[in-house]
Amino acid sequence: MRTDEKALVERLRMLAPIEGAAAVRETLEGIRPEDIAEALQRLGTDEELAILRHLDAETAAYVLIELPTEDARAIINQLPDATVAHYLDILPMDDAIELREELDPERFEALLHVIPREDAQEIRRLLSYPEESAGQLMTEDFAECTPEDTMMDVLRMIRQTPDSDFETVNYIYVLSEDRHLLGLLSLKRVIRSDPMSTAREVMHDDPVTILATDGQEEAARMVARYGFSALPVLDERGRMVGIITADDAQEILEEAETEDVLRLGGVSGDAEAYLSLSIWQLIRRRLPWLLVLFIAEFFTGSVLRYYTGQAEEGGKTMLAQMMLFVPLLIGAGGNSGSQVTTTITRSLALGEVKATDWFTVMVREATIALMIGSALGFVGFLRAKLPVIGWNQPMSLSLVVGFALPAIVLWAATVGSLLPITAKRLGFDPAVMSAPFITTFVDATGLVIYFEIARRVLGAFHQTF
Amino acid sequence: MRTDEKALVERLRMLAPIEGAAAVRETLEGIRPEDIAEALQRLGTDEELAILRHLDAETAAYVLIELPTEDARAIINQLPDATVAHYLDILPMDDAIELREELDPERFEALLHVIPREDAQEIRRLLSYPEESAGQLMTEDFAECTPEDTMMDVLRMIRQTPDSDFETVNYIYVLSEDRHLLGLLSLKRVIRSDPMSTAREVMHDDPVTILATDGQEEAARMVARYGFSALPVLDERGRMVGIITADDAQEILEEAETEDVLRLGGVSGDAEAYLSLSIWQLIRRRLPWLLVLFIAEFFTGSVLRYYTGQAEEGGKTMLAQMMLFVPLLIGAGGNSGSQVTTTITRSLALGEVKATDWFTVMVREATIALMIGSALGFVGFLRAKLPVIGWNQPMSLSLVVGFALPAIVLWAATVGSLLPITAKRLGFDPAVMSAPFITTFVDATGLVIYFEIARRVLGAFHQTF
Repeated sequence: MRTDEKALVERLRMLAPIEGAAAVRETLEGIRPEDIAEALQRLGTDEELAILRHLDAETAAYVLIELPTEDARAIINQLPDATVAHYLDILPMDDAIELREELDPERFEALLHVIPREDAQEIRRLLSYPEESAGQLMTEDFAECTPEDTMMDVLRMIRQTPDSDFETVNYIYVLSEDRHLLGLLSLKRVIRSDPMSTAREVMHDDPVTILATDGQEEAARMVARYGFSALPVLDERGRMVGIITADDAQEILEEAETEDVLRLGGVSGDAEAYLSLSIWQLIRRRLPWLLVLFIAEFFTGSVLRYYTGQAEEGGKTMLAQMMLFVPLLIGAGGNSGSQVTTTITRSLALGEVKATDWFTVMVREATIALMIGSALGFVGFLRAKLPVIGWNQPMSLSLVVGFALPAIVLWAATVGSLLPITAKRLGFDPAVMSAPFITTFVDATGLVIYFEIARRVLGAFHQTF
Repeated sequence: MRTDEKALVERLRMLAPIEGAAAVRETLEGIRPEDIAEALQRLGTDEELAILRHLDAETAAYVLIELPTEDARAIINQLPDATVAHYLDILPMDDAIELREELDPERFEALLHVIPREDAQEIRRLLSYPEESAGQLMTEDFAECTPEDTMMDVLRMIRQTPDSDFETVNYIYVLSEDRHLLGLLSLKRVIRSDPMSTAREVMHDDPVTILATDGQEEAARMVARYGFSALPVLDERGRMVGIITADDAQEILEEAETEDVLRLGGVSGDAEAYLSLSIWQLIRRRLPWLLVLFIAEFFTGSVLRYYTGQAEEGGKTMLAQMMLFVPLLIGAGGNSGSQVTTTITRSLALGEVKATDWFTVMVREATIALMIGSALGFVGFLRAKLPVIGWNQPMSLSLVVGFALPAIVLWAATVGSLLPITAKRLGFDPAVMSAPFITTFVDATGLVIYFEIARRVLGAFHQTF
């Protein structure tokens, strides 16, 4: 299905200008919204719009929410209110809410008055929960019953409720009169149990729940953790207000993970398909970080310059030799720092490591750094000291290099492990402590370590240098 | 549930030595295997074993497969065959197969003779598919019916089949006599349709399918992409052989993403919980890469040394000045390279960018690099040229820095975008082209660019230097 995507893109590009829904619908017959959306992304907005116009409203609505935010926004801005309202009406609430991100607030507000009253009310209810909260991710369309209902009642209920009223009926939630969650029934269980038995008898009690005020990512991790197809969401008073389905959770996790990966690489911004972003958008995501790091790197030059300044004529040759090792040292510091930051950040994201584990982590990383650093130090020493295959440097300088390496690696590991954890403690995303950030920071500070060790081993600069 | 984990860990640590299953079972009453496993990870193997021994076989089996491979292996090695065989028997096949990774082949083979014959056969069938293939991830325990079955037949079938025979009954698959997949029925659909209507009339045809020989990650992405709770798996002859459930897919994706993140950070190895890995295991995952990068960085030193050698007395001072900019230049190259590699690698993993898009990607990245590079170049020029806030360098050197930056950034972007795509084309994981790798590579090569520009702008070394 995804193999012939290129062909599909070409076909659509051809069809876009043609007036005539028939051809388009025929081409896209049986192709799923996710795949249509992926193909459309590779066309221009006008082409996307033209194709979308030819689709039946239902398909169009689902394609629209599968498109990257930027594309969807561009399209929606050109669609008449009536059409958008119709889409809002067609889509399940949790998807409809996604459309909001692509609409400017006034227009969205206006649209809420056009769509059916209870839909508008539900959307307002969901929006009343904090941004990025489970409450905004959930759907209120879940199947429920009372503890006294028999399995027969439940099945009748499922038969008689209009299809669109349920996001899923794989689970039926047993609620008390004050809407507290007493337990849940899997549809399978309902079918397999004695038709006359009551929900209370059959239900599985003590279900896993999440709070509407929990973060979306945290909630999504819970869904993934237990592998359920949906998790019930409770409000602060313990009443069940909705469910989060596995597919919505999956989407959230993928976005969160993408953002973490990019941040670790020193790129800011939301998870958006690379090809759907304009050159300018990509620059906006990268240049700020690069500039900050660039300015920060000035400090490294200053460190070099300071110590160069210290060296008097006698030491200049020695200094020139020392300079040759600078990339090696800051490289080793940067690379080991990146390894640590990446590992710790990922473990924090997966919840394997908690902010409270900072001491354990620091000790482990320090131990590892000392061993790894010594290994590198030994190799570095050989590189400096050995003739022919090495650089045949004096023992003194070779020792400086050999000692500087473990020191720098240790420093990099400490910074690389504690900064993400600190960020987490302070409530930031640990991934903002990106690998490039650690690397740059370790560059300058690492050189101070190098030169200070040199100062001691080689004696004060103005003497030996 | 996860908040009181620390408390649980403490309680377990206390209980582990005590002989007496009662206390342990009571403590863990109603706690889910996933949570028990997470708590156990923080104990030593002996403690883990002691606790596990006290649990009923079913709980123990599920806890075991939730444990990180290393822990599980250590425990299984100390469990008697009878117990392990019992676990294999209890677990659904797709989980049972996971246990295999933790057993040495001979023992696993031996166990297959102990467990029920048809289970052993199913395990052998699944294992006959390639490593890491969808076939090894799927379960054969799906619900099926013939196109002639009525909804009533289907419901009766679901009522009468023993519970353990189905991983899920949310979908019932309609198979022809030669086991080709004709369509599928959602359980909801079955309940809501006329009891006398046949599967052929009610079924949704043209379902999304995957091949048993497809890669696990690819298959998992498909499941996630469409948000289904299960996808049917076909063999090479188009016969349905199993299903991949959303929760198994989710697990695969999380592991794959973790491995990608770590590789990007220059750490090799499978996705394993950080705290469950020993210091030695962590070193084994990091040191090799670091050593390779370290040796590679030697080249950077050689580049510096080569050009230092070129410079005669007259040029030494100029060279010393040039040296001050080295960290700035290789830093900029490394950081922009990391950004590009990270972005492209992630897009490749998500399937947003295909290997065939290499030209589009290269052109975009080159354009971006030129603009970003020029910005950095301008700032770098000011840093070099300006008095007081800058370093008050001669115009010539300041220009060299200003021109070297866009050149290096462009080079880094090209390398950073093409290497992952090339890796993908050659069938490797793009993430092996880790950011540290790109950075190190750009360090040395970037300096060549710097000094060659200097050679031209400042005239040949032996003249101006």
